[in-house]
Amino acid sequence: MDINNLGFTTINLGHGSGGELTRNLLDKLIFSVFNNPFLNEKHDGAIVKIEGKIAISTDSFVITPIFFKGGNIGSLAVHGTVNDVAMCGAIPKYLSLAFIIEEGLDVGEFYNIIKSIKKAADESGVVIVTGDTKVVERGKGDKIFINTTGFGEVHPQANISVDHIKVGDKIIVNGFIAQHGMAIMSERKGLEFESDIESDSTNLNYLVKDLLDAFGDKIKLFRDPTRGGLGTVLHEIATDIELGVFLKEAYIPIEKQVAAACEMLGLDPMYVANEGVFIAIVDPSIENEVLALMRSHEKGKNASIIGEITDEHPNKVVLKSLIGGKRIVSPLVGEQLPRIC
Amino acid sequence: MDINNLGFTTINLGHGSGGELTRNLLDKLIFSVFNNPFLNEKHDGAIVKIEGKIAISTDSFVITPIFFKGGNIGSLAVHGTVNDVAMCGAIPKYLSLAFIIEEGLDVGEFYNIIKSIKKAADESGVVIVTGDTKVVERGKGDKIFINTTGFGEVHPQANISVDHIKVGDKIIVNGFIAQHGMAIMSERKGLEFESDIESDSTNLNYLVKDLLDAFGDKIKLFRDPTRGGLGTVLHEIATDIELGVFLKEAYIPIEKQVAAACEMLGLDPMYVANEGVFIAIVDPSIENEVLALMRSHEKGKNASIIGEITDEHPNKVVLKSLIGGKRIVSPLVGEQLPRIC
Repeated sequence: MDINNLGFTTINLGHGSGGELTRNLLDKLIFSVFNNPFLNEKHDGAIVKIEGKIAISTDSFVITPIFFKGGNIGSLAVHGTVNDVAMCGAIPKYLSLAFIIEEGLDVGEFYNIIKSIKKAADESGVVIVTGDTKVVERGKGDKIFINTTGFGEVHPQANISVDHIKVGDKIIVNGFIAQHGMAIMSERKGLEFESDIESDSTNLNYLVKDLLDAFGDKIKLFRDPTRGGLGTVLHEIATDIELGVFLKEAYIPIEKQVAAACEMLGLDPMYVANEGVFIAIVDPSIENEVLALMRSHEKGKNASIIGEITDEHPNKVVLKSLIGGKRIVSPLVGEQLPRIC
Repeated sequence: MDINNLGFTTINLGHGSGGELTRNLLDKLIFSVFNNPFLNEKHDGAIVKIEGKIAISTDSFVITPIFFKGGNIGSLAVHGTVNDVAMCGAIPKYLSLAFIIEEGLDVGEFYNIIKSIKKAADESGVVIVTGDTKVVERGKGDKIFINTTGFGEVHPQANISVDHIKVGDKIIVNGFIAQHGMAIMSERKGLEFESDIESDSTNLNYLVKDLLDAFGDKIKLFRDPTRGGLGTVLHEIATDIELGVFLKEAYIPIEKQVAAACEMLGLDPMYVANEGVFIAIVDPSIENEVLALMRSHEKGKNASIIGEITDEHPNKVVLKSLIGGKRIVSPLVGEQLPRIC
């Protein structure tokens, strides 16, 4: 498709009118990229079929900048929701896709975003089945916000719930933490610093499926620590189950450059956002097998057993530091960096 | 719930951090209003069960002002998506709910919006099963944007598709057109005019279900003419089916005050947005029964047979005016009024 022959170079309010210009934008740009029988029906909704129990998750993405090292708001909007569906113990199948565009968005940028959405959706095995496009006046939005809502089939062997977590269960993380947040920070005005740190934004659904195929209900919980980071998510789990989480800092995987950037900015990587990281809380009988399976997978090659569930300090996350001391990991209070996803 | 004891009077960036303040907002305000077992799981997604084929529809709502005569952005966000699911010939069951809030939104306003969402969802028979809250900086949004995505069970007797439309099929509308758009215009800065016009925003799903129960696949299509109005939607249908639509203006129901306001502003009500209006395209053998059923229903009491499908002018909508002349109804080009929904 030649975006120079569209007859417009920026998105304007008319593209959100529901009239001829909206149809034009949909037909020439959006449907031509996504081209599938669901969207080609051009109805206000789509009809799909899902067997068994259905997992649903929704997320709006307001990240700035919209293009960053390792991805853009489009790929992120697919990965984020695909992963949330997967964390429910499900196989993601379908996505809805809704844009809120600020008047004046460059059509080339928009085209790159939707191509990234298509690529990320294809790689994740999900189909965009229905969508919506709204346009707001200049100064009433910020380039583009994207909502995706995902639907998946719950894996027949999955039995994911905080209620199944017991003392002694192991906490395993699939890879390096804090990459997404530090990649975004390195590009923010006022914070810009030289780095090669890339966002870890990726789809985790195939690794999750492999784990469920192999270990079924011995996996108690999946959770992806996005906003708020690993520390906040583990604290939420601890308070939900009224048990403690004990972590060993030495086992928490972090890439050197990311650790250095955190130190430079005075940030605790435990609170920095991730987009390709998840934890599995598993029965201790399978910890080494889970670790081995993760490490055999591209998206789990840096996996590590980082801690366990304990009854020694209920509702608290305690971290044994590299130098041997212990500290409590509180949840993130306030805002470390707005609009990280 | 006493919103004066929350410890905050406006939404700030920390409420979108994913940390303690987000949890605070969710627990004290959002979950306390919606209180249901799906949300109380506090996972990133929900597990639901739907029998048979599933209809999915998504919409983002960016309307301004956020409170207007006849509703607010919250009730509208429920009605809009419930209706889009219903238009697929389905019974809406579940909604996801995602907020993009501009920093500084008054908590009282937010609370009123979520109470309206709860009320509209209850009245429509749908449950809010999962959600998301993001906060953007002042000047990067406009008070609040809401995305809802809806899921429903396709009615077992429904067989909705433009492909089933034939020459001679009748077009029936359930009630007065152009109310939503004119209600919003009456409150817009610069356009403000005295009127009692209320938005027609409402849920149409029960009337749609009754029609499907009674007439099954003799109903060829449902469509709700929201953005772009009745004219644009009928034009889309005409081009999709490569047949003509013939309308008689005398039968198009419009309330006097709305017609007068349109005339005053020089607007054609055929392009003004609706939120409680739908058309049914039906087999001519049932037109009078459909009309009678609609009129027996509160939300169809002003129903009218407005026209029919013809092969005389393919791809075109032709309107026979009150004074007897004929004119072509083109689709809306450009933007009549931004952010009408």
